[in-house]
Amino acid sequence: MAYISLPEDLPGIRGLMNYRPETAQPLNQLVDVLLQKPSSLGKGERELIASYVSSLNKCKYCSNTHGAVAKHHLGDGEIVEQVKANNIDTASVSSKVKALLNIAGKVQRSGRSVTEKDIEKARKEGATDKELHDTVLIAASFCMFNRYVDGLGTSAPDDPEVYDQIGAYRAENGYQAPNNEIK
Amino acid sequence: MAYISLPEDLPGIRGLMNYRPETAQPLNQLVDVLLQKPSSLGKGERELIASYVSSLNKCKYCSNTHGAVAKHHLGDGEIVEQVKANNIDTASVSSKVKALLNIAGKVQRSGRSVTEKDIEKARKEGATDKELHDTVLIAASFCMFNRYVDGLGTSAPDDPEVYDQIGAYRAENGYQAPNNEIK
Repeated sequence: MAYISLPEDLPGIRGLMNYRPETAQPLNQLVDVLLQKPSSLGKGERELIASYVSSLNKCKYCSNTHGAVAKHHLGDGEIVEQVKANNIDTASVSSKVKALLNIAGKVQRSGRSVTEKDIEKARKEGATDKELHDTVLIAASFCMFNRYVDGLGTSAPDDPEVYDQIGAYRAENGYQAPNNEIK
Repeated sequence: MAYISLPEDLPGIRGLMNYRPETAQPLNQLVDVLLQKPSSLGKGERELIASYVSSLNKCKYCSNTHGAVAKHHLGDGEIVEQVKANNIDTASVSSKVKALLNIAGKVQRSGRSVTEKDIEKARKEGATDKELHDTVLIAASFCMFNRYVDGLGTSAPDDPEVYDQIGAYRAENGYQAPNNEIK
Protein backbone atom coordinates (compact mmCIF):
# COMPACT_ATOMS: atom_id res chain seq x y z
CA MET A 1 0.00 0.00 0.00
CA ALA A 2 1.37 3.40 -1.03
CA TYR A 3 1.42 6.24 1.53
CA ILE A 4 -1.30 8.12 -0.39
CA SER A 5 -4.44 6.86 -2.16
CA LEU A 6 -3.40 5.53 -5.58
CA PRO A 7 -5.06 3.13 -8.05
CA GLU A 8 -4.00 -0.34 -6.89
CA ASP A 9 -3.56 -1.73 -10.40
CA LEU A 10 -0.87 0.83 -11.32
CA PRO A 11 2.46 0.08 -9.57
CA GLY A 12 5.52 2.32 -9.24
CA ILE A 13 5.43 5.71 -10.92
CA ARG A 14 2.37 4.74 -12.98
CA GLY A 15 -0.05 5.33 -10.08
CA LEU A 16 1.64 8.65 -9.27
CA MET A 17 1.39 9.78 -12.91
CA ASN A 18 -2.31 8.93 -12.81
CA TYR A 19 -2.77 10.78 -9.49
CA ARG A 20 -1.20 14.09 -10.56
CA PRO A 21 -1.39 14.65 -14.36
CA GLU A 22 -0.08 18.24 -13.99
CA THR A 23 3.33 16.93 -12.90
CA ALA A 24 3.15 13.74 -15.01
CA GLN A 25 3.13 15.79 -18.21
CA PRO A 26 6.51 17.55 -17.76
CA LEU A 27 8.04 14.43 -16.16
CA ASN A 28 7.12 12.30 -19.17
CA GLN A 29 8.29 15.00 -21.56
CA LEU A 30 11.64 15.26 -19.75
CA VAL A 31 12.29 11.53 -19.81
CA ASP A 32 11.19 11.31 -23.44
CA VAL A 33 13.75 13.97 -24.47
CA LEU A 34 16.48 12.33 -22.40
CA LEU A 35 15.88 8.66 -23.20
CA GLN A 36 13.95 8.47 -26.46
CA LYS A 37 14.57 11.45 -28.71
CA PRO A 38 17.43 11.16 -31.25
CA SER A 39 20.87 11.49 -29.65
CA SER A 40 24.45 10.44 -30.38
CA LEU A 41 24.06 8.14 -27.36
CA GLY A 42 22.03 5.05 -28.20
CA LYS A 43 18.66 4.52 -26.55
CA GLY A 44 20.00 1.35 -24.93
CA GLU A 45 23.04 3.23 -23.59
CA ARG A 46 20.86 5.94 -22.08
CA GLU A 47 18.53 3.37 -20.50
CA LEU A 48 21.61 1.64 -19.05
CA ILE A 49 22.51 4.90 -17.27
CA ALA A 50 18.94 5.15 -15.94
CA SER A 51 18.87 1.56 -14.67
CA TYR A 52 22.40 1.84 -13.21
CA VAL A 53 21.51 4.91 -11.13
CA SER A 54 18.17 3.37 -10.09
CA SER A 55 19.96 0.26 -8.99
CA LEU A 56 22.50 2.29 -6.95
CA ASN A 57 19.49 3.99 -5.33
CA LYS A 58 18.00 0.53 -4.68
CA CYS A 59 14.77 1.52 -6.43
CA LYS A 60 13.29 -1.84 -7.40
CA TYR A 61 10.57 -0.50 -9.70
CA CYS A 62 12.78 1.88 -11.71
CA SER A 63 15.87 -0.34 -11.93
CA ASN A 64 13.80 -3.27 -13.19
CA THR A 65 11.72 -1.18 -15.56
CA HIS A 66 14.61 0.70 -17.17
CA GLY A 67 16.74 -2.43 -17.15
CA ALA A 68 13.97 -4.08 -19.19
CA VAL A 69 13.75 -1.11 -21.60
CA ALA A 70 17.56 -1.23 -22.01
CA LYS A 71 17.40 -4.97 -22.69
CA HIS A 72 14.83 -4.44 -25.42
CA HIS A 73 16.92 -1.74 -27.09
CA LEU A 74 20.23 -3.61 -26.76
CA GLY A 75 18.83 -7.06 -27.51
CA ASP A 76 21.03 -8.26 -24.63
CA GLY A 77 20.04 -8.78 -21.00
CA GLU A 78 23.55 -9.77 -19.89
CA ILE A 79 24.96 -6.23 -20.25
CA VAL A 80 22.10 -4.88 -18.15
CA GLU A 81 22.79 -7.40 -15.38
CA GLN A 82 26.52 -6.56 -15.41
CA VAL A 83 25.82 -2.83 -15.12
CA LYS A 84 23.14 -3.25 -12.45
CA ALA A 85 25.58 -5.41 -10.46
CA ASN A 86 28.02 -2.45 -10.65
CA ASN A 87 30.51 -4.44 -12.74
CA ILE A 88 31.14 -1.51 -15.07
CA ASP A 89 34.79 -2.31 -15.82
CA THR A 90 34.00 -5.75 -17.23
CA ALA A 91 30.63 -4.93 -18.84
CA SER A 92 30.38 -5.29 -22.61
CA VAL A 93 29.99 -1.58 -23.33
CA SER A 94 32.33 0.92 -25.02
CA SER A 95 35.03 2.78 -23.07
CA LYS A 96 33.04 5.97 -23.59
CA VAL A 97 29.93 4.46 -22.00
CA LYS A 98 32.05 3.13 -19.12
CA ALA A 99 33.37 6.65 -18.49
CA LEU A 100 29.84 8.07 -18.66
CA LEU A 101 28.53 5.40 -16.27
CA ASN A 102 31.33 6.37 -13.89
CA ILE A 103 30.11 9.99 -14.00
CA ALA A 104 26.50 8.84 -13.50
CA GLY A 105 27.58 6.89 -10.42
CA LYS A 106 29.25 10.00 -9.01
CA VAL A 107 26.10 12.07 -9.65
CA GLN A 108 24.08 9.44 -7.77
CA ARG A 109 26.16 10.16 -4.65
CA SER A 110 26.25 13.93 -5.12
CA GLY A 111 26.67 16.40 -7.98
CA ARG A 112 29.67 17.72 -6.10
CA SER A 113 31.53 14.43 -6.38
CA VAL A 114 31.98 14.71 -10.17
CA THR A 115 35.56 15.89 -10.84
CA GLU A 116 37.37 17.55 -13.72
CA LYS A 117 39.28 14.26 -14.02
CA ASP A 118 36.08 12.22 -14.51
CA ILE A 119 35.04 14.64 -17.27
CA GLU A 120 38.48 14.55 -18.94
CA LYS A 121 38.47 10.77 -18.93
CA ALA A 122 35.10 10.72 -20.72
CA ARG A 123 36.26 13.35 -23.23
CA LYS A 124 39.34 11.23 -24.03
CA GLU A 125 36.99 8.39 -24.92
CA GLY A 126 35.10 10.70 -27.28
CA ALA A 127 32.29 12.10 -25.12
CA THR A 128 30.88 15.43 -26.35
CA ASP A 129 29.51 18.33 -24.30
CA LYS A 130 25.97 17.23 -25.09
CA GLU A 131 26.66 13.62 -24.06
CA LEU A 132 28.20 14.84 -20.80
CA HIS A 133 25.23 17.15 -20.21
CA ASP A 134 22.68 14.44 -20.90
CA THR A 135 24.50 11.83 -18.82
CA VAL A 136 24.50 14.13 -15.79
CA LEU A 137 20.86 15.07 -16.30
CA ILE A 138 19.73 11.46 -16.84
CA ALA A 139 21.54 10.43 -13.64
CA ALA A 140 20.17 13.45 -11.74
CA SER A 141 16.62 12.88 -13.00
CA PHE A 142 16.67 9.26 -11.84
CA CYS A 143 17.76 10.46 -8.41
CA MET A 144 14.43 12.30 -8.56
CA PHE A 145 12.30 9.50 -10.04
CA ASN A 146 13.68 6.92 -7.58
CA ARG A 147 12.95 9.17 -4.58
CA TYR A 148 9.48 9.99 -5.93
CA VAL A 149 8.56 6.32 -6.36
CA ASP A 150 10.03 5.10 -3.05
CA GLY A 151 9.33 8.21 -0.94
CA LEU A 152 5.60 7.69 -1.46
CA GLY A 153 5.84 3.97 -0.73
CA THR A 154 4.51 2.77 -4.09
CA SER A 155 4.38 -0.93 -4.88
CA ALA A 156 6.81 -2.78 -7.17
CA PRO A 157 5.84 -6.09 -8.82
CA ASP A 158 8.02 -9.16 -8.17
CA ASP A 159 7.29 -10.88 -11.50
CA PRO A 160 10.06 -10.17 -14.10
CA GLU A 161 7.47 -10.70 -16.85
CA VAL A 162 5.65 -7.50 -15.78
CA TYR A 163 8.82 -5.44 -16.23
CA ASP A 164 9.52 -7.15 -19.51
CA GLN A 165 6.12 -6.07 -20.83
CA ILE A 166 6.62 -2.48 -19.67
CA GLY A 167 10.14 -2.54 -21.17
CA ALA A 168 8.87 -3.73 -24.56
CA TYR A 169 6.07 -1.14 -24.55
CA ARG A 170 8.28 1.82 -23.61
CA ALA A 171 11.11 0.76 -25.95
CA GLU A 172 8.63 0.78 -28.80
CA ASN A 173 6.40 3.73 -27.89
CA GLY A 174 8.47 6.12 -25.77
CA TYR A 175 7.42 7.89 -22.58
CA GLN A 176 4.67 10.10 -23.88
CA ALA A 177 2.52 7.14 -24.93
CA PRO A 178 -0.49 6.50 -22.66
CA ASN A 179 0.18 4.96 -19.28
CA ASN A 180 -2.88 2.75 -19.29
CA GLU A 181 -2.22 0.78 -22.46
CA ILE A 182 0.42 -1.42 -20.85
CA LYS A 183 -1.14 -4.82 -20.28
CA MET B 1 34.34 27.34 -15.35
CA ALA B 2 31.64 24.77 -15.92
CA TYR B 3 32.61 21.31 -17.26
CA ILE B 4 30.89 22.05 -20.59
CA SER B 5 30.76 25.24 -22.71
CA LEU B 6 28.10 27.52 -21.22
CA PRO B 7 27.46 31.28 -21.48
CA GLU B 8 29.64 32.83 -18.77
CA ASP B 9 27.10 35.47 -17.77
CA LEU B 10 24.46 32.87 -16.78
CA PRO B 11 25.38 31.12 -13.50
CA GLY B 12 23.88 27.95 -11.98
CA ILE B 13 21.00 26.33 -13.80
CA ARG B 14 20.48 29.40 -16.02
CA GLY B 15 23.38 28.53 -18.32
CA LEU B 16 22.19 24.90 -18.53
CA MET B 17 18.66 26.02 -19.41
CA ASN B 18 20.11 28.18 -22.16
CA TYR B 19 22.31 25.31 -23.42
CA ARG B 20 19.54 22.72 -23.77
CA PRO B 21 16.08 24.29 -24.31
CA GLU B 22 14.52 20.86 -24.99
CA THR B 23 15.08 19.83 -21.36
CA ALA B 24 14.68 23.37 -19.95
CA GLN B 25 11.06 23.47 -21.07
CA PRO B 26 9.76 20.47 -19.05
CA LEU B 27 12.05 21.34 -16.10
CA ASN B 28 10.61 24.86 -15.89
CA GLN B 29 7.09 23.54 -16.30
CA LEU B 30 7.62 21.00 -13.50
CA VAL B 31 8.99 23.53 -11.06
CA ASP B 32 6.25 26.01 -11.97
CA VAL B 33 3.53 23.46 -11.14
CA LEU B 34 5.27 22.46 -7.91
CA LEU B 35 6.30 25.87 -6.57
CA GLN B 36 4.12 28.50 -8.21
CA LYS B 37 0.74 27.14 -9.24
CA PRO B 38 -2.13 27.43 -6.70
CA SER B 39 -1.84 24.89 -3.86
CA SER B 40 -3.00 24.52 -0.27
CA LEU B 41 0.70 24.86 0.64
CA GLY B 42 1.85 28.49 0.45
CA LYS B 43 4.43 29.48 -2.16
CA GLY B 44 6.81 30.45 0.64
CA GLU B 45 6.32 27.07 2.33
CA ARG B 46 7.08 25.22 -0.89
CA GLU B 47 10.17 27.32 -1.56
CA LEU B 48 11.31 26.56 2.01
CA ILE B 49 11.20 22.84 1.17
CA ALA B 50 13.23 23.50 -2.01
CA SER B 51 15.87 25.57 -0.22
CA TYR B 52 16.04 23.12 2.71
CA VAL B 53 16.76 20.14 0.44
CA SER B 54 19.23 22.19 -1.63
CA SER B 55 21.02 23.20 1.52
CA LEU B 56 21.20 19.56 2.72
CA ASN B 57 22.70 18.74 -0.71
CA LYS B 58 25.15 21.65 -0.23
CA CYS B 59 24.11 23.18 -3.56
CA LYS B 60 25.12 26.81 -3.13
CA TYR B 61 23.31 28.15 -6.21
CA CYS B 62 19.95 26.44 -5.56
CA SER B 63 19.86 26.89 -1.77
CA ASN B 64 20.59 30.62 -2.08
CA THR B 65 18.23 31.14 -5.00
CA HIS B 66 15.25 29.32 -3.50
CA GLY B 67 16.03 30.73 -0.06
CA ALA B 68 15.73 34.19 -1.67
CA VAL B 69 12.45 33.29 -3.41
CA ALA B 70 11.10 31.95 -0.08
CA LYS B 71 12.15 35.16 1.66
CA HIS B 72 10.28 37.26 -0.88
CA HIS B 73 7.12 35.19 -0.49
CA LEU B 74 7.28 35.00 3.33
CA GLY B 75 8.49 38.56 3.86
CA ASP B 76 10.90 37.05 6.42
CA GLY B 77 14.51 36.01 5.90
CA GLU B 78 14.94 34.70 9.45
CA ILE B 79 12.72 31.62 8.87
CA VAL B 80 14.75 30.79 5.76
CA GLU B 81 18.02 30.96 7.69
CA GLN B 82 16.60 28.74 10.48
CA VAL B 83 15.46 26.12 7.99
CA LYS B 84 18.67 26.21 5.95
CA ALA B 85 20.64 25.78 9.19
CA ASN B 86 18.54 22.62 9.79
CA ASN B 87 16.91 24.10 12.91
CA ILE B 88 13.48 22.84 11.92
CA ASP B 89 12.18 22.24 15.44
CA THR B 90 12.64 25.85 16.49
CA ALA B 91 11.83 27.50 13.13
CA SER B 92 8.80 29.80 13.01
CA VAL B 93 6.71 27.55 10.77
CA SER B 94 3.54 25.54 11.48
CA SER B 95 3.70 22.02 12.90
CA LYS B 96 2.42 20.74 9.56
CA VAL B 97 5.29 22.40 7.69
CA LYS B 98 7.76 21.02 10.25
CA ALA B 99 6.43 17.51 9.61
CA LEU B 100 6.65 18.04 5.84
CA LEU B 101 10.21 19.38 6.12
CA ASN B 102 11.08 16.25 8.10
CA ILE B 103 9.76 14.12 5.21
CA ALA B 104 11.68 16.27 2.68
CA GLY B 105 14.87 15.71 4.67
CA LYS B 106 14.30 11.95 4.56
CA VAL B 107 13.72 12.07 0.79
CA GLN B 108 17.03 13.94 0.43
CA ARG B 109 18.82 10.94 1.92
CA SER B 110 16.77 8.30 0.08
CA GLY B 111 13.15 7.73 -0.89
CA ARG B 112 13.39 4.52 1.08
CA SER B 113 14.04 6.32 4.35
CA VAL B 114 10.52 7.83 4.51
CA THR B 115 8.47 5.76 6.96
CA GLU B 116 4.77 5.21 7.63
CA LYS B 117 5.39 7.00 10.94
CA ASP B 118 6.73 10.15 9.20
CA ILE B 119 3.61 10.19 7.03
CA GLU B 120 1.26 9.63 9.98
CA LYS B 121 2.88 12.46 11.91
CA ALA B 122 2.29 14.84 8.99
CA ARG B 123 -1.30 13.66 8.61
CA LYS B 124 -1.95 14.32 12.31
CA GLU B 125 -0.86 17.91 11.70
CA GLY B 126 -3.36 18.18 8.86
CA ALA B 127 -1.30 17.25 5.77
CA THR B 128 -3.41 15.99 2.84
CA ASP B 129 -2.52 13.37 0.24
CA LYS B 130 -1.75 16.11 -2.27
CA GLU B 131 0.47 17.98 0.17
CA LEU B 132 2.36 14.77 0.95
CA HIS B 133 2.69 14.01 -2.76
CA ASP B 134 3.95 17.47 -3.61
CA THR B 135 6.35 17.59 -0.66
CA VAL B 136 7.98 14.33 -1.76
CA LEU B 137 8.14 15.44 -5.40
CA ILE B 138 9.53 18.91 -4.55
CA ALA B 139 12.23 17.28 -2.40
CA ALA B 140 12.96 14.64 -5.06
CA SER B 141 13.08 17.22 -7.85
CA PHE B 142 15.62 19.32 -5.96
CA CYS B 143 17.75 16.22 -5.55
CA MET B 144 17.75 16.34 -9.36
CA PHE B 145 18.26 20.10 -9.80
CA ASN B 146 21.10 20.18 -7.25
CA ARG B 147 22.93 17.31 -8.96
CA TYR B 148 22.37 18.85 -12.39
CA VAL B 149 23.82 22.21 -11.33
CA ASP B 150 26.79 20.82 -9.37
CA GLY B 151 27.46 17.72 -11.50
CA LEU B 152 28.27 19.97 -14.46
CA GLY B 153 30.42 22.27 -12.34
CA THR B 154 28.40 25.45 -12.96
CA SER B 155 29.34 28.68 -11.22
CA ALA B 156 27.49 30.18 -8.24
CA PRO B 157 27.76 33.90 -7.42
CA ASP B 158 29.01 34.93 -3.96
CA ASP B 159 27.09 38.21 -3.79
CA PRO B 160 23.79 37.83 -1.82
CA GLU B 161 22.36 40.73 -3.84
CA VAL B 162 22.42 38.58 -7.01
CA TYR B 163 20.27 35.90 -5.34
CA ASP B 164 17.98 38.56 -3.94
CA GLN B 165 17.31 39.88 -7.44
CA ILE B 166 16.65 36.38 -8.81
CA GLY B 167 14.41 35.69 -5.78
CA ALA B 168 12.35 38.84 -6.35
CA TYR B 169 12.01 38.10 -10.09
CA ARG B 170 10.96 34.46 -9.66
CA ALA B 171 8.62 35.23 -6.73
CA GLU B 172 6.83 37.72 -8.94
CA ASN B 173 6.98 36.01 -12.34
CA GLY B 174 7.21 32.26 -11.71
CA TYR B 175 9.48 29.77 -13.46
CA GLN B 176 8.16 29.95 -16.98
CA ALA B 177 9.11 33.61 -17.34
CA PRO B 178 12.17 34.23 -19.56
CA ASN B 179 15.55 33.38 -18.12
CA ASN B 180 17.32 36.35 -19.65
CA GLU B 181 15.26 39.13 -18.15
CA ILE B 182 16.86 38.85 -14.73
CA LYS B 183 19.21 41.79 -14.35
